[in-house]
Amino acid sequence: MPEIVELNVGGVHYTTTLNTLLQDKTTLLHELFAGPEGRDTLAKDSKGRYFLDRDGVLFRYILDYLRDKALQLPEGFRERQRLQREAEHFKLTAMLDCIKGDRDARPPGCITIGYRGSFQFGKDGLADVKFRKLSRILVCGRVAQCREVFGDTLNESRDPDHGGPDRYTSRFFLKHCFIEQAFDNLHDHGYRMAGSCGSGTAGSAAEPKPGVDTEENRWNHYNEFVFIRD
Amino acid sequence: MPEIVELNVGGVHYTTTLNTLLQDKTTLLHELFAGPEGRDTLAKDSKGRYFLDRDGVLFRYILDYLRDKALQLPEGFRERQRLQREAEHFKLTAMLDCIKGDRDARPPGCITIGYRGSFQFGKDGLADVKFRKLSRILVCGRVAQCREVFGDTLNESRDPDHGGPDRYTSRFFLKHCFIEQAFDNLHDHGYRMAGSCGSGTAGSAAEPKPGVDTEENRWNHYNEFVFIRD
Amino acid sequence: MPEIVELNVGGVHYTTTLNTLLQDKTTLLHELFAGPEGRDTLAKDSKGRYFLDRDGVLFRYILDYLRDKALQLPEGFRERQRLQREAEHFKLTAMLDCIKGDRDARPPGCITIGYRGSFQFGKDGLADVKFRKLSRILVCGRVAQCREVFGDTLNESRDPDHGGPDRYTSRFFLKHCFIEQAFDNLHDHGYRMAGSCGSGTAGSAAEPKPGVDTEENRWNHYNEFVFIRD
Amino acid sequence: MPEIVELNVGGVHYTTTLNTLLQDKTTLLHELFAGPEGRDTLAKDSKGRYFLDRDGVLFRYILDYLRDKALQLPEGFRERQRLQREAEHFKLTAMLDCIKGDRDARPPGCITIGYRGSFQFGKDGLADVKFRKLSRILVCGRVAQCREVFGDTLNESRDPDHGGPDRYTSRFFLKHCFIEQAFDNLHDHGYRMAGSCGSGTAGSAAEPKPGVDTEENRWNHYNEFVFIRD
Amino acid sequence: MPEIVELNVGGVHYTTTLNTLLQDKTTLLHELFAGPEGRDTLAKDSKGRYFLDRDGVLFRYILDYLRDKALQLPEGFRERQRLQREAEHFKLTAMLDCIKGDRDARPPGCITIGYRGSFQFGKDGLADVKFRKLSRILVCGRVAQCREVFGDTLNESRDPDHGGPDRYTSRFFLKHCFIEQAFDNLHDHGYRMAGSCGSGTAGSAAEPKPGVDTEENRWNHYNEFVFIRD
Repeated sequence: MPEIVELNVGGVHYTTTLNTLLQDKTTLLHELFAGPEGRDTLAKDSKGRYFLDRDGVLFRYILDYLRDKALQLPEGFRERQRLQREAEHFKLTAMLDCIKGDRDARPPGCITIGYRGSFQFGKDGLADVKFRKLSRILVCGRVAQCREVFGDTLNESRDPDHGGPDRYTSRFFLKHCFIEQAFDNLHDHGYRMAGSCGSGTAGSAAEPKPGVDTEENRWNHYNEFVFIRD
Repeated sequence: MPEIVELNVGGVHYTTTLNTLLQDKTTLLHELFAGPEGRDTLAKDSKGRYFLDRDGVLFRYILDYLRDKALQLPEGFRERQRLQREAEHFKLTAMLDCIKGDRDARPPGCITIGYRGSFQFGKDGLADVKFRKLSRILVCGRVAQCREVFGDTLNESRDPDHGGPDRYTSRFFLKHCFIEQAFDNLHDHGYRMAGSCGSGTAGSAAEPKPGVDTEENRWNHYNEFVFIRD
Repeated sequence: MPEIVELNVGGVHYTTTLNTLLQDKTTLLHELFAGPEGRDTLAKDSKGRYFLDRDGVLFRYILDYLRDKALQLPEGFRERQRLQREAEHFKLTAMLDCIKGDRDARPPGCITIGYRGSFQFGKDGLADVKFRKLSRILVCGRVAQCREVFGDTLNESRDPDHGGPDRYTSRFFLKHCFIEQAFDNLHDHGYRMAGSCGSGTAGSAAEPKPGVDTEENRWNHYNEFVFIRD
Repeated sequence: MPEIVELNVGGVHYTTTLNTLLQDKTTLLHELFAGPEGRDTLAKDSKGRYFLDRDGVLFRYILDYLRDKALQLPEGFRERQRLQREAEHFKLTAMLDCIKGDRDARPPGCITIGYRGSFQFGKDGLADVKFRKLSRILVCGRVAQCREVFGDTLNESRDPDHGGPDRYTSRFFLKHCFIEQAFDNLHDHGYRMAGSCGSGTAGSAAEPKPGVDTEENRWNHYNEFVFIRD
Repeated sequence: MPEIVELNVGGVHYTTTLNTLLQDKTTLLHELFAGPEGRDTLAKDSKGRYFLDRDGVLFRYILDYLRDKALQLPEGFRERQRLQREAEHFKLTAMLDCIKGDRDARPPGCITIGYRGSFQFGKDGLADVKFRKLSRILVCGRVAQCREVFGDTLNESRDPDHGGPDRYTSRFFLKHCFIEQAFDNLHDHGYRMAGSCGSGTAGSAAEPKPGVDTEENRWNHYNEFVFIRD
């Protein structure tokens, strides 16, 4: 049967067990709550709750971390830096590593996806069958992040400098031609589309070269999509 | 008359009935609260409330599920993974299935809608009547998701490989020509527009072929809309 | 002097009057609280508050509705379906009608606004005065929603099938030429811009027809704006 | 030393002073709390707090207004209409004027900014110096709102009808050529960019007129930015 | 051992230490709480908590500031102006400086990034290797903000007026050609992409000049990205 501890953290009340508070021996909480004599020197509020002079709202996540030994913040959590400050205060090194590791593993940044496309025109009775045709999906951004997102589907052959993951490239492309698959990959890795641009090509005074489909040639366009991860 | 139970879940207080807590025999809550002797071994806080050492805020949805036997989360709910962790802790298998099933039934992903359009020009006194004219609405994305969204209005005849719902296609199109209906379908299925691109066509040194309306030809454009479901 | 009632709704405490709770005779609350003998059979929590085994947070809006007999939810309220479930539980038919009526009166959907425009070029010393010139604002979407938004400013003469408000049209246009007024109308009706596309026209091997301003002709473009109401 | 008043507003507890509650003689709060005999007839909850049967959450702003005699709502506040209802209930005319005045002073609406631009090409050894060149920034929207945003930098000379601030215009332009300054002005006045469109020009069968820079001519484009204030 | 102080701030309860409240000698809190005789004249609520007639919610940040002597607000915090009002009330000059300094150091505003690009076409067997090629990244906006974001990578040589950081320029460009690096710089400084425009070039009746790659020439386009910092 657990020993129940009532806490007053800056005015917000939490209830937990001694066991949870003593999870990690290196923390300030362990320092404060290990041994009855330690606890006796702790300040208490007027209702007898142990008192901690810190932000009451963020302590929710401190406690969650101690219970589950894993960091699971709400999506779109907006107090990450504030939480880091609390974890520092409580010397919760393991939690701090999680907060920072999370950011290191998914650094913010931008990747641009572009494609030069046109339409495939039928030559016969199927003349109305005109699908999007794209020759290659270009990938631009920081090398390490492009690799993280696209893995094996990334073709680096045109920019084979295997060092410098921090450099930027605009010479990577994908091994497949499904732009939606590229979008899904980006989305799965936490990138969100921030902008998109389309542009057509200019006509020319010259007749198109032999073998070039005039109609396909006219519909040439370049679409570019910018993705950003916060 | 229900037996009222007061709970202290990590410091947040809930009131419910024993009946609600015992809804589902396979859960940890049933284990803990079934039989007075079980309850007697439970920890209580200083006010006599039964104590659970878990996140207090998320327990709201655990309780809602037990009351209604149905999962109804707020729109844009941002603690799904955290809630899953709680449901796992309480061995709420049925609720867990709902959380996961919800995601399986509506997997995140991207669908692109494109159309090649121009304008319809009047031939006579109605020369100013120029409406958007589009020949075909193209649908690109993962096969299973395109089918989920567009159902019977999807024409798969140009990419009839009936297996592999996980493959990507860019050869589906719609049986109708109302782009707004396609947008509504996507919106109804939880997709949100993430970007849009427009591009015109290039002129040509050659005279247009006979039978082609020169003006309509000049206004040819390709508009592409990217939809993403989180 | 009102009779004050203290409630414990799933752990959240509310205070209100008996009068407010008995507003509507058809509700479960009336059933529960009408007559002292009814109230006597109600469960109470340890502080003597009447206990209701429902979600505590959403009860705020139930109470608001009973006080004012009108539904006024926060903008961007994300628990509409959850609230509906509560209203159903409490048999608050009038409130349920409001929630549903609200949705019926403003169904979600998409409207596209497009215009073919160019610039007006001065002929003389005012040659630098070049304003946006647009001949017609096109409106595409579901007929009923187009009518709701644009009312008397909508010209339906080119698609005069007066039945079928559920059908889609791309042949409506506006009686005026102020695109910003159209945007304002859409915004006033809860539509938000989701995307926008621009495209220019192609040049032609042929000389422009007599009477056509060459420069104006070159600047022809089509801009399309997609609006969505959630 | 202030006289402290404890309130129970629909279940939410507030503490304030009698002085704060009596700030404004025309309000319902003054009516209720002026004079000990008035207060004696007020309902109290079981803890002796004065009871008001209204929404507890929104009362925070009522109290803030009484303390500071100024309205300062959170950015993106989503319960404005609900708050208005509360202010009406409490006959807080001055606060009501603030809520409404705020809206009147910053009416929602749309302004479009467009520019016809190209690039400035160097004539000599500096041939690579090619900056964005734009001749004029066009402003379209409702006259009063354009004036509010752009003030002295607005040139109305081409649409000099000095009446009718409610009419729409597409013939205003700016006295300067810095599009970013226009964006900053709009942003400062609460407008947010909702969409943007770009389009190029068409080539022509004719040779460009003498004195026209061919390259600059080719890069002509029109970019249009739509701003909306909620 | 700290002296614990229980506060009732407008109805919200906080617990802190006397030490925290007396951090800063110039504040109203120091004035109120320094010396037992001062505290004795303070109003107390019915539970003996010291009473402050101010907004209870925002006091969380006042207390955080006193504890850590540093301002760390949640991302996307929407009550900055309201908090400023509270800091003014409590004469927390140092905190006020932080709130204002924060805004001065990162003033809101707009920066536009544009590039004229095309594609690099292979001349031989590598004919399908066509990457995005851009000659120069243009930077437009207020001089001081451009400098803050791009630092050493900014080339100001074409607009070398070294005074007037408040003036706007459209003649800055970057020393490198990686548009994604520019996006990352902007993102790191709190700018978010608000819109994007693409446009192609017009064809010409004239044959391209010798030495110009016809195909590359046809694909010329201008993409423009608008970033805004709130």
